[in-house]
Amino acid sequence: MKVHFNDGIKDIRALWYENGIIKFLDQRKIPEKVEIFNAMDYNDVAFAIREMVVRGAPAIGVSAAYGMAQAYNQKKDLKKVAEVLSSTRPTAHDLFYAIKYMQEKIENGEDPLIAAGNYAEDIIERSRKIGEYGNALIKEGSKIMTHCNAGALAVIDWGTALAPMRYAKKEGKNIFVWVDETRPRLQGARLTSWELKQEGIPHKIIADNASGFIMKQGEVDLIIVGADRIALNGDFANKIGTYEKAVLAKENAVPFYVAAPISTIDRNIENGSKIPIEERSQNEVLYAGDCRIAPEGVEAYNPAFDVTPSKYVDGFITEYGIIKPNEIKNLIK
Amino acid sequence: MKVHFNDGIKDIRALWYENGIIKFLDQRKIPEKVEIFNAMDYNDVAFAIREMVVRGAPAIGVSAAYGMAQAYNQKKDLKKVAEVLSSTRPTAHDLFYAIKYMQEKIENGEDPLIAAGNYAEDIIERSRKIGEYGNALIKEGSKIMTHCNAGALAVIDWGTALAPMRYAKKEGKNIFVWVDETRPRLQGARLTSWELKQEGIPHKIIADNASGFIMKQGEVDLIIVGADRIALNGDFANKIGTYEKAVLAKENAVPFYVAAPISTIDRNIENGSKIPIEERSQNEVLYAGDCRIAPEGVEAYNPAFDVTPSKYVDGFITEYGIIKPNEIKNLIK
Repeated sequence: MKVHFNDGIKDIRALWYENGIIKFLDQRKIPEKVEIFNAMDYNDVAFAIREMVVRGAPAIGVSAAYGMAQAYNQKKDLKKVAEVLSSTRPTAHDLFYAIKYMQEKIENGEDPLIAAGNYAEDIIERSRKIGEYGNALIKEGSKIMTHCNAGALAVIDWGTALAPMRYAKKEGKNIFVWVDETRPRLQGARLTSWELKQEGIPHKIIADNASGFIMKQGEVDLIIVGADRIALNGDFANKIGTYEKAVLAKENAVPFYVAAPISTIDRNIENGSKIPIEERSQNEVLYAGDCRIAPEGVEAYNPAFDVTPSKYVDGFITEYGIIKPNEIKNLIK
Repeated sequence: MKVHFNDGIKDIRALWYENGIIKFLDQRKIPEKVEIFNAMDYNDVAFAIREMVVRGAPAIGVSAAYGMAQAYNQKKDLKKVAEVLSSTRPTAHDLFYAIKYMQEKIENGEDPLIAAGNYAEDIIERSRKIGEYGNALIKEGSKIMTHCNAGALAVIDWGTALAPMRYAKKEGKNIFVWVDETRPRLQGARLTSWELKQEGIPHKIIADNASGFIMKQGEVDLIIVGADRIALNGDFANKIGTYEKAVLAKENAVPFYVAAPISTIDRNIENGSKIPIEERSQNEVLYAGDCRIAPEGVEAYNPAFDVTPSKYVDGFITEYGIIKPNEIKNLIK
């Protein structure tokens, strides 16, 4: 992804491996600062995932892959490392997918660092293809709405939901993006807006509350969101509030698409009711950034994800093309 | 309403007239501080309405009524005062209703201060009745969701949407309230939570994004919201995000009620498409409280209200009882 530094624009990734250290763009600090978080061992990687230094299902997968490779090179107990990394966050499927991938590669005697690097390159190429396929949905002048951040920061490059928009921009299409701020963690206002600004893609931030109004006004041609886990029937988990956008899209006849690589599909889960939903700290709701926004002594409830039934999904934009929810099962055969 | 001070609980109102000054609980400061804003003349009253020292359709109406009375006593040009007060905010109907009420009283030679006091007492009694009627919808153990603040702060006492909950509490019912934080101005997290805490009503704050998920989980028995303007066909304007809750309520078979006195009905407007929607400063979205939450140089769009079509409304809780949307017309004959 493009990042504007004082000494020019650099093309960097959300995380990479360098001299034994896993380096993360610290997503807790963006947009105020572009800082690097150095993970020296698997405990640092677990911290980075849990505290959302890195977030987004595919990027969490890459983090875990490099975390396993780093731990192997540091001669750690890989069974314990896999356990610790698996316990960081419960909803994103890519985390478990990447750990299993690395375990298999290591069992087969492959170099773990090369395997993790291949995993990273592979996910980037899959994201690029998602961009290429998704671009077909975008017309000159399209107004697109997205939720949370399913951009390069969430995938290490290109993005899932944002990949088609980057592709459309590269092809010279004039597009406009409505960016839901995405409370409580504000990934839309903080991260998606920052990414779109780096890429020069016109957009406006809106309160999550305004998305229905804007759809009803006829100002949204297309919605694209990411996914954290997809069940075999096409139900999918994504950032809290996705279900609301999906219902409102259906009510207002706005096409609603989910962009995700097949690593997000959980072949052990028949439908969305089986997807575990992470509950995070109340403080994410009681504060916005560092600002307390609620009276002292009151409580909040903070589910981090919701499940959207497949009936609200017009299609999944995958690295193999755009498919209907009932075709998910065929894709992973 | 009850307010806990260091020297005990006091029963006060959101605003009152005292020795020529209109005194407002400064709603920009709650919950951090309970401070009084003194409006010395109609320009101060206009500032208080525009900057949301006071907000909520009925409370804005009372503010305008006292503002007219104060201006009369200060021998100001009442035509100009009415113009200035009318220009403060476009959506809430009570503002225009109260100004017209005061103009008629003054034309009839009534004492404006007595007329404004009567207007205030009258709206409190109407709110109490809304509480009494609305209480019939609330069962022992009911879980109720609300949006924004339609409480005592919005009406000077009792509230509209919160009045049935206060009534239920007084009758000894155990209830629980889901409080949407209500971005961008956070009236739910800041004001509704503060009011419910003062009254000892159990509640939790949620991100606006979580309301659909919570409805889908079956954790909401009833939704009650306020209104800023009601059209003759039962379409109504209320705080941005209300339309989203209404659509999600219908989708999840959660009863959806609107609590408002008849001063909120605009008899000149046939349907919701004619209700003017205020667009407020981008900074309300780009900041949460004093915290910047978005990159520098990006833009936001900030509609302050939305319109919910009457088909999503199960009933209006008024001071004359609970009625269906198609009965609105009869009510004001």
